[in-house]
Amino acid sequence: MKNLSRRSFLQNVSMGAGGVAVAASLPSFMMPPANDAGKKLNIAICGLGRYGNYLAEGIAVSQYCKVAGIITGTPAKAAEWKTKYNIPEKNIYNYQNFDEIKNNKDIDLVYVVLPNAMHKEYTIRAAKAGKHVIVEKPMAITPADCREMIDACKTAGVQLAVGYRLHYEPYNLEMKRLGQEKVFGQVRLIEASLGYKTSDPTEWRLNKALAGGGPLMNVGIYCVQSSRYVTGEEPISVTAQFGPITDKKLFAEVEASIAWQLEFPGGAFSNCTSTYNCGIDRFFASADEGTFELSPGISYGPFKGKTSKAELNFPEINQQAAQCDGIAKIILDNKQLPEHINGEEGFKDMKVLQAIYEAARTGKKISLV
Amino acid sequence: MKNLSRRSFLQNVSMGAGGVAVAASLPSFMMPPANDAGKKLNIAICGLGRYGNYLAEGIAVSQYCKVAGIITGTPAKAAEWKTKYNIPEKNIYNYQNFDEIKNNKDIDLVYVVLPNAMHKEYTIRAAKAGKHVIVEKPMAITPADCREMIDACKTAGVQLAVGYRLHYEPYNLEMKRLGQEKVFGQVRLIEASLGYKTSDPTEWRLNKALAGGGPLMNVGIYCVQSSRYVTGEEPISVTAQFGPITDKKLFAEVEASIAWQLEFPGGAFSNCTSTYNCGIDRFFASADEGTFELSPGISYGPFKGKTSKAELNFPEINQQAAQCDGIAKIILDNKQLPEHINGEEGFKDMKVLQAIYEAARTGKKISLV
Repeated sequence: MKNLSRRSFLQNVSMGAGGVAVAASLPSFMMPPANDAGKKLNIAICGLGRYGNYLAEGIAVSQYCKVAGIITGTPAKAAEWKTKYNIPEKNIYNYQNFDEIKNNKDIDLVYVVLPNAMHKEYTIRAAKAGKHVIVEKPMAITPADCREMIDACKTAGVQLAVGYRLHYEPYNLEMKRLGQEKVFGQVRLIEASLGYKTSDPTEWRLNKALAGGGPLMNVGIYCVQSSRYVTGEEPISVTAQFGPITDKKLFAEVEASIAWQLEFPGGAFSNCTSTYNCGIDRFFASADEGTFELSPGISYGPFKGKTSKAELNFPEINQQAAQCDGIAKIILDNKQLPEHINGEEGFKDMKVLQAIYEAARTGKKISLV
Repeated sequence: MKNLSRRSFLQNVSMGAGGVAVAASLPSFMMPPANDAGKKLNIAICGLGRYGNYLAEGIAVSQYCKVAGIITGTPAKAAEWKTKYNIPEKNIYNYQNFDEIKNNKDIDLVYVVLPNAMHKEYTIRAAKAGKHVIVEKPMAITPADCREMIDACKTAGVQLAVGYRLHYEPYNLEMKRLGQEKVFGQVRLIEASLGYKTSDPTEWRLNKALAGGGPLMNVGIYCVQSSRYVTGEEPISVTAQFGPITDKKLFAEVEASIAWQLEFPGGAFSNCTSTYNCGIDRFFASADEGTFELSPGISYGPFKGKTSKAELNFPEINQQAAQCDGIAKIILDNKQLPEHINGEEGFKDMKVLQAIYEAARTGKKISLV
């Protein structure tokens, strides 16, 4: 799934695949800065798993962010990252002494990339230490936890963002624009599906206490996201169905596959699937006067997209760099993160995810209004 | 949706788009005949609506079939068809004198293309008149009706086929082969969706008594079909959900949209949608070692397909001609139609469609075993 480009982010965003300048079509935070010597947001990464690595690689090529510190329980990882990212010893924490980060002026923000069930604790601890927070998606494992995290950050006077990399990805921004601006008229039907094959039974993502659920929590959340940002609406009802459990050992705790349907107030109907059983990565929307779609379009890229009128051709970007820059720019400018980026967005998704699980368990249509 | 090629069928099947001979990769009934002077199956078309026209145009360019007669209640249509297809007056029937076709040696087979709810009556009347029958899909509006039709044809000693045009379409035959031969391993997930925008409130397809149901009966049946022929299995359970009714006048009697999920004994999970609310035409399968897909791939073509390894490139064919030739060849050879072509296939689909409606109405998972 991962296909991280190592070309510099700047090069990626300022030039299209064919070498044509495309920067003018990119969001403002992706534009080359007027002054490269501008201040950077110093980020401490909390949790050095696979995705923590992707993030650090993205931040390393970002414009407005720097890997300034780490929080890890594994001394070997600490040593490796210290060298790789030139991190001073004093900016390296473990899970016991993490709260001392309060006294470290070199850290502006903590990026929480721990297993889902740990997001709440570490977000709240970071907030209490006076640090801004980006928490990886899913924001937590219940809506109540999300609310506690939002409140803790508010109380501490720090900002809280959720790590939705696709909010900064050109193909997905285009889907959002086509849907919300009704370029092809009212959207009637959305199909969004994301999945990959899981095989390691020791992975924390298969442990319900740590993950909070299966593919829905991890990848299905992107399909809920795209349904929401393409319609620009919140779903009013949910139905859902678990797929077959084909490997009883692997899927002893979490679903192997799940399908769900969302109804939106404007009349759109979304039918989605997420799975740990096989690969799938598709987004499709049909509106009154045309269609628009991506495949692949949800994973790490490179993406392909088209509408019923034309092929889409956007630059391949480093999604992690773009996301961190997008958030950092707002914080560095001393502005408030808008609601579609801050904790409220994670809370809204979590309410939908919880309803999807309830619908799948009970077989009932769950109202969200 | 309709994009009927007027190039001759023979030309289409013997040459690929690039002018390269591809006949060797086509089913045997599509091969140019050894002797063009061979006998043809004389077909009377019963019902001269839009699809009756498509069929006649296909038959006119077929190898083994001829438009030999018509059954219509509209004298103006009779006159028009008489000229267009050079049909002798004695081979033109109306719905009252239709049974006299029994004495007409010029007619071998009646193709029933009436509204769904009339399929049963005219199939049984044709059988009693000693004529073979092709009945358009959906075969009828209940499984019990399908069974009566099968029994009536058996009693009369005539053959009964269901008009599944995609059983003869190269891209769909390839999907079937890739799935059933497990070329990419066991299929885990299928997504199949077909829909178009309906706007004419007088259309019989919106009348429940005539159509038996909405888009599921008309186009969703293709998604049930592809799920069945790609897995080569019968579903063991069904869940389903009606989509929102966005136009209460148009959809006063039948569903506007419907989604459903099928579980197969080998572990495949199929999530499908059909709609009269907007355009959609996609088939996708993900297996243990790869994916294969068509889009468009269910409507009348031209189709596009690919696997995770390569683009697919098959000739565009006249689907109606190919289907009629496929059935005619077997009948002309005095062989029995195999089960995946005869009435049993229509009965199997109708059982699934009935369960989908029951699941959508009750919100319950319906067992099919």
